[in-house]
Amino acid sequence: MERVIEKTLRRIEPASEEWRKKAGGHIDNLVKPVGSLGRLEECVARIVAIQQTMKPSLEKKFIVLMAGDHGVVAEKVSLYPQEVTAKMVENFVGGGAAICVLARHAGAEVRVVDIGVAADLQPADRLLIKKIGYGTKNFAKGAAMTREEAEKAVAIGIELSRELGDAGARTILTGDMGIGNTTPSTAVAAAITGIAPEELAGRGTGLDDEGVARKAAVVRKGIEVNRPDPADAIDVLAKVGGYEIAGLCGVILGACAEKMVTVVDGFISTAALLAAWRMQPKVMDCIFSAHCSNERGHVRVLDFLGLRPLLDLDMRLGEGSGGAVALHILEASIRMFNEMASFGEAGVERK
Amino acid sequence: MERVIEKTLRRIEPASEEWRKKAGGHIDNLVKPVGSLGRLEECVARIVAIQQTMKPSLEKKFIVLMAGDHGVVAEKVSLYPQEVTAKMVENFVGGGAAICVLARHAGAEVRVVDIGVAADLQPADRLLIKKIGYGTKNFAKGAAMTREEAEKAVAIGIELSRELGDAGARTILTGDMGIGNTTPSTAVAAAITGIAPEELAGRGTGLDDEGVARKAAVVRKGIEVNRPDPADAIDVLAKVGGYEIAGLCGVILGACAEKMVTVVDGFISTAALLAAWRMQPKVMDCIFSAHCSNERGHVRVLDFLGLRPLLDLDMRLGEGSGGAVALHILEASIRMFNEMASFGEAGVERK
Repeated sequence: MERVIEKTLRRIEPASEEWRKKAGGHIDNLVKPVGSLGRLEECVARIVAIQQTMKPSLEKKFIVLMAGDHGVVAEKVSLYPQEVTAKMVENFVGGGAAICVLARHAGAEVRVVDIGVAADLQPADRLLIKKIGYGTKNFAKGAAMTREEAEKAVAIGIELSRELGDAGARTILTGDMGIGNTTPSTAVAAAITGIAPEELAGRGTGLDDEGVARKAAVVRKGIEVNRPDPADAIDVLAKVGGYEIAGLCGVILGACAEKMVTVVDGFISTAALLAAWRMQPKVMDCIFSAHCSNERGHVRVLDFLGLRPLLDLDMRLGEGSGGAVALHILEASIRMFNEMASFGEAGVERK
Repeated sequence: MERVIEKTLRRIEPASEEWRKKAGGHIDNLVKPVGSLGRLEECVARIVAIQQTMKPSLEKKFIVLMAGDHGVVAEKVSLYPQEVTAKMVENFVGGGAAICVLARHAGAEVRVVDIGVAADLQPADRLLIKKIGYGTKNFAKGAAMTREEAEKAVAIGIELSRELGDAGARTILTGDMGIGNTTPSTAVAAAITGIAPEELAGRGTGLDDEGVARKAAVVRKGIEVNRPDPADAIDVLAKVGGYEIAGLCGVILGACAEKMVTVVDGFISTAALLAAWRMQPKVMDCIFSAHCSNERGHVRVLDFLGLRPLLDLDMRLGEGSGGAVALHILEASIRMFNEMASFGEAGVERK
């Protein structure tokens, strides 16, 4: 496992400055005041720099939705019972969940991965069973998983991105499901950034102030009990993370190694990105932050990483839902690049 | 003309609080934590309250792109020569302009209206010739147009929204073209809000600091010379506005009277909205602010109106370009409402 991860980290390269400039030259020659399409221009220039072609495209687009359970729910950090994770996986397969609707709207395919749900799931078409365990252990009392399990989860994510690449994927969007998973995400973020748990812990699916304080205390305790090494992302993921967080970290690393446009959803996905960034900072060249979630810690982690999200719509559902909406912005940027007339074609003199 | 306007103002009603609550009940029963889809939930609840149906839809969507010229360009307030307005209208008809590309992406039809371009335009399929004059007069030296002309422009906009309503429009997005038109928009905004021109004037298509200072001085002079009555929107539009700004004000009034989802683009469109709001504050219930433009005064005017835009992508092109991107957010909100499973269907207990 460790070897797969190491190999992948070495394959990740910075986006091409040469292609970015080439894209910029083309964009500045489209019939509009220079820079007037703002972030649409930035987005497509970056996509060109990643894909190294003047015919950029997001197709095919895949949403990788990793699901896992969390022993830390024993500390009463979520409003919903653990059984809901498995139920929601059924809904992802069935098509009625928010991400299914938004994926159809975005023209993206969903791949659901059971990487650690605490129940045996019925096999289904778009469901991959890659179960490492039946939920993690309660990290308030010891490590959430072993180092080997964390590596295995990361490797599963890497492998999945590679397979989707072989199937034609040029865009990967991360999504998550796991009752209680804002708590390990807060712990991963606190461990890696050094920001206090009290400043990061948020309401999750709807905790009250007392619940949020309890969550922060659980995260603080988890870090004290486990003492994760902030410089060692695998150690952090193993001790206070979750299967789906580690898996999404691998998805991000794999997608960047495959030179894919890598769209990171909300707080859980950004915790996975933090771990990926800690292993290989060059991933940032391929990353698009989809949206600023309403989960309290998200904006802090985005600031830490220097990311400006595309959307700010007060969303806090997870599943990849914010990312699915943001895909449209990237599509708009690509159409602008591919379809707009130049100054010459439009008969307007360039200023 | 005045009678058409008065009649329209009386037809505008607040959105239905009863339908909004009904929408809220449905949304809270969809399988997700309450409120977790944030502004998507707000948007569709408002659309239901406007359309008064539990099967909301944006179809058909029209972008009304009004084009006019401005005598105030004699004061050197734009980088581009006036001829570019007519050239860009050709490009809107030809399909290579940014708004054409983004409209295709949004599944919206574009209607271009010559309401005051300073040139005779070739007739074309999607171009409506409703010319009131060959550009306005230089408002730094006197009124931009007569009161009758301003009323005529507003009435043209109202009539167009009505016609599009008859053609099945349920969504209208405002767009603008007019070399120099950030200057009259700044003047309209300054006159109505009372905010100093120096705080509102921005770079337009790319003025330097000196150009921006000149623009602010021109606006200040225009207001001093013409003394528009801040309480009388028609007076403001006539004295320091523009044909397309007055026309878009009418489009907004007409769309709201027809109970359409009314999407307002950037700075110029928001100046038109200010005038519409001054005539009938109830319009605000139907309004969606598409994006926060990079034009300096826009955020001030949005704050004045209490509007939170859907997007913030540093765009500043006009044409309706930001609005075309924002339509996707509204579509996502509607699909969520129409297609998501309920808690009952999903087999999850509601919290």
